[in-house]
Amino acid sequence: MATIFTKIINREIPAHIVAEDEHYIAFLDIMPLAKGHVLVVPKKEVDYIFDLDDATLSGLHLFAKKVAKAIDKTIKCTRVGVAVIGLEVPHVHVHLVPLRTMDDINFSRPKLKLSQEELAVIAETIRKGF
Amino acid sequence: MATIFTKIINREIPAHIVAEDEHYIAFLDIMPLAKGHVLVVPKKEVDYIFDLDDATLSGLHLFAKKVAKAIDKTIKCTRVGVAVIGLEVPHVHVHLVPLRTMDDINFSRPKLKLSQEELAVIAETIRKGF
Repeated sequence: MATIFTKIINREIPAHIVAEDEHYIAFLDIMPLAKGHVLVVPKKEVDYIFDLDDATLSGLHLFAKKVAKAIDKTIKCTRVGVAVIGLEVPHVHVHLVPLRTMDDINFSRPKLKLSQEELAVIAETIRKGF
Repeated sequence: MATIFTKIINREIPAHIVAEDEHYIAFLDIMPLAKGHVLVVPKKEVDYIFDLDDATLSGLHLFAKKVAKAIDKTIKCTRVGVAVIGLEVPHVHVHLVPLRTMDDINFSRPKLKLSQEELAVIAETIRKGF
């Protein structure tokens, strides 16, 4: 059964996509810790990041770097933090979170509630920086 | 002025090293979120992970994968989480944190207090798995 991320990749469910190439996709987290919180996902459906083959793992982080630079350019933050937890959706996803303080990347705190319109504007902003 | 991590690399200050090669080093975080919490550091002293050149960034994550597999083999956990925050020490460091729940990678909660002896035992355990 396809993961929710595979359904996004296949355009079966909508997402605010900010970047995509042959092997990877990046879209906004709809439960963001901060404005501009992006998930970077390999199109290959693998559950655990350390089960990715070396080429896919390297490529994932190089793609994430390009997305992070687009976030740095377009979203107000000190830098972009990285987190991979993976206890929920069984499909590798790298969180890129615009940071100002350590607590901005605390997944235990309440998520922001942003409207579809707000998310669309943020996605468009980052997309232009990519 | 050398960062605290460069001083560890140069053996000017002690650390519980678990793995090392020409370009990278991994040692226990002395303020761990969980037993087996490791920092993976490039020997090149760069502040921000997304300022690393592509080869160093790829190599860092491939080295981290090998360390994570050693942690998976030797430390009781569901999987190994990854975080890069970088608002404190100005030298890239990837946190590898053995996870059982989402909150295990919450940097805002109190850190474990482990003795040097406990840390030495954990480091030796992971080193054997590497």
